[in-house]
Amino acid sequence: MSMHDSDTGFSAKAQTLAAIGRELHARGWVPATSGNFSMRLNGESALVTASGKHKGRLADTDFLAVDLRGQPLGAGKPSAETLLHTQLYAWRDWIDTVLHCHSPNATVLSRLTVGDSLILSDYELQKALRGIDTHATPVRIPIFENTQHIPELAQQVDAYLRANPDCSGYLIRGHGIYCWGANAEECMRHLEALDFLFQCELLAQRHGDRQR
Amino acid sequence: MSMHDSDTGFSAKAQTLAAIGRELHARGWVPATSGNFSMRLNGESALVTASGKHKGRLADTDFLAVDLRGQPLGAGKPSAETLLHTQLYAWRDWIDTVLHCHSPNATVLSRLTVGDSLILSDYELQKALRGIDTHATPVRIPIFENTQHIPELAQQVDAYLRANPDCSGYLIRGHGIYCWGANAEECMRHLEALDFLFQCELLAQRHGDRQR
Amino acid sequence: MSMHDSDTGFSAKAQTLAAIGRELHARGWVPATSGNFSMRLNGESALVTASGKHKGRLADTDFLAVDLRGQPLGAGKPSAETLLHTQLYAWRDWIDTVLHCHSPNATVLSRLTVGDSLILSDYELQKALRGIDTHATPVRIPIFENTQHIPELAQQVDAYLRANPDCSGYLIRGHGIYCWGANAEECMRHLEALDFLFQCELLAQRHGDRQR
Amino acid sequence: MSMHDSDTGFSAKAQTLAAIGRELHARGWVPATSGNFSMRLNGESALVTASGKHKGRLADTDFLAVDLRGQPLGAGKPSAETLLHTQLYAWRDWIDTVLHCHSPNATVLSRLTVGDSLILSDYELQKALRGIDTHATPVRIPIFENTQHIPELAQQVDAYLRANPDCSGYLIRGHGIYCWGANAEECMRHLEALDFLFQCELLAQRHGDRQR
Repeated sequence: MSMHDSDTGFSAKAQTLAAIGRELHARGWVPATSGNFSMRLNGESALVTASGKHKGRLADTDFLAVDLRGQPLGAGKPSAETLLHTQLYAWRDWIDTVLHCHSPNATVLSRLTVGDSLILSDYELQKALRGIDTHATPVRIPIFENTQHIPELAQQVDAYLRANPDCSGYLIRGHGIYCWGANAEECMRHLEALDFLFQCELLAQRHGDRQR
Repeated sequence: MSMHDSDTGFSAKAQTLAAIGRELHARGWVPATSGNFSMRLNGESALVTASGKHKGRLADTDFLAVDLRGQPLGAGKPSAETLLHTQLYAWRDWIDTVLHCHSPNATVLSRLTVGDSLILSDYELQKALRGIDTHATPVRIPIFENTQHIPELAQQVDAYLRANPDCSGYLIRGHGIYCWGANAEECMRHLEALDFLFQCELLAQRHGDRQR
Repeated sequence: MSMHDSDTGFSAKAQTLAAIGRELHARGWVPATSGNFSMRLNGESALVTASGKHKGRLADTDFLAVDLRGQPLGAGKPSAETLLHTQLYAWRDWIDTVLHCHSPNATVLSRLTVGDSLILSDYELQKALRGIDTHATPVRIPIFENTQHIPELAQQVDAYLRANPDCSGYLIRGHGIYCWGANAEECMRHLEALDFLFQCELLAQRHGDRQR
Repeated sequence: MSMHDSDTGFSAKAQTLAAIGRELHARGWVPATSGNFSMRLNGESALVTASGKHKGRLADTDFLAVDLRGQPLGAGKPSAETLLHTQLYAWRDWIDTVLHCHSPNATVLSRLTVGDSLILSDYELQKALRGIDTHATPVRIPIFENTQHIPELAQQVDAYLRANPDCSGYLIRGHGIYCWGANAEECMRHLEALDFLFQCELLAQRHGDRQR
């Protein structure tokens, strides 16, 4: 019974993420099999995209269950960055969905920004982020250096999140964005809002935004 | 009878705005639940999008009726910016539709432009705006500073419109555009024309347009 | 019989142009009812879009027949720029389709370019234009100043075409592009090629193209 | 029997490339009939797009079989650049698909880059290319000067590939990109990855990327 229930949950969540994948691939945010997506299954596990799949054509069999340390609970090879997903589920009970994308805006802005964070301010759309209720509250997006050593990166992310519990997303330099939410809808809202703000920053920097 | 008729009108207008929402979301002009839309119901009321809805997936139940001071006529929480819609219906009898969007072009250009207005000139497409019949007539788009105090902003808009009755849209700095029309089609024409002109201005400013 | 035949031709051509209109509107090249399209009916007449129609939703009734001096052959108001279409049919027997668009690339590049023409060179895609068989042949696109006096503009175009019979398209400053072909397919190929080249020029000019 | 089998293979591959063509045309990477596509049929032949076809509307009859020196095996005129496809099949047994596109990013970046190659580094997406497993490995994309003498260009490509067997794509100045893969899916992954990286480079160069 519980097995069947949890299977149903797996498939429904896989289909939710597949629909998101089609939308994000059409936007060019997960090119060339890049990016990876996950949703929490319960207090101890999550489903995550398998390694190397086309994100615009995900089937149920392209996902696998992992524990919150990122270890697979069955056959299949999880994405190399699985730990960056599961650490978020371990960090906060309310996090239900994590999306990682490689949009051009996120990739380029993370390379152009000098220093370890980007400050967004005076955009009405900052209010789309959890806990922000005015454009006057600056939003800080940390930027971590890219590495192929995921456990090391996970440790840096962990340290940052403990010190900055209101964070709703981060960049990896030359790599992409991670963001999360209490459900798939909120996570997509955060992703849309952050990419919009990155796009605006790139457009504005070309001209020398007066805020800079 | 009249109740039934007005219900019918409500639903037809909600569906018109839902179709517009799908188109505008696909263009990236209402990301992350931003933007809001309204249509006049009669001399004393309008329907407006409820707060926080995904603008690409609007159902009838995502709209509510408000009076022209922006107060809800039934249950539900209207968008925080409802007053910016209803003041336009109160201002001019012929206004039937109001659209508010957060396009990247509108957002960035409103931040980059120094001063309280943007002047558009020598574009053929200016003729798509109500009352303009030659590219030689400059179009002035006022830019208001962003605020979370909507009644204060509404007052500034009101003062501007009384002094500039030919205005067909305005910007809020770092926030987005408001525009209107005698019907949904004209309002979309104004929105398309204004966003096109903003896009051209941004492209041109990168190169140092000779008109500047 | 001939009446019925010509009606059939009218409708088939209207539908060809309606399909083109849907594609061009989706690309953002005919925003806010801008642009106009035509096809030759026979040696003495053409069909052309009526004034002020949404170019993404054209029906048969949105077109009307005109003679080659641009005068309507029935009821309805032809587009103000009809003469710019019909002068091309009068100029060359083989011209069958004329498209006029307001793409952002055409609009902005026509404003940024100093002088009365744009020279395109060293692009492989120049070969998509009629009569060009190597990237080494520079392509000259004339730019006319915008005016609301269409007969005056038509006269300038006429003089240019007589002196430059190989021309396959022109720009009007701050307004858009006109191009033509021996059939709808060739005309679309010219339009796609020219807009692509304009887009490349705008991208390249941002960086200071080495050819400049 | 074998005739029937090989016909089936031809048609299935033509349909695979037609589906790719629809996707690439929608992205604007094969404007105005530009670009050409091929797939290996067996050890001695490949199918390739015929000359001058709209790449978004390819039918089986728009392809023809050629031998690995680029000569047609039946009626029809192969694309002028057929030899650039077949030399790749002759070079490596495992190459199954070759795509040539004219995206704006590839075209403009190939013109802006001084020298005979582009170096991509510190992008996570480099890992989408065959044989690359870290962003820290720089990727070199050679740029050949454009010419209408395809055999001469093929010779230069051949010399480069012999010296650089790990190459997974190249640019032709002002013309476009060639890339390949062990199957259609890998070739599309390479194309998406390379165009994404070109787009990032163009965006970054506008601002003066700190890596430069």
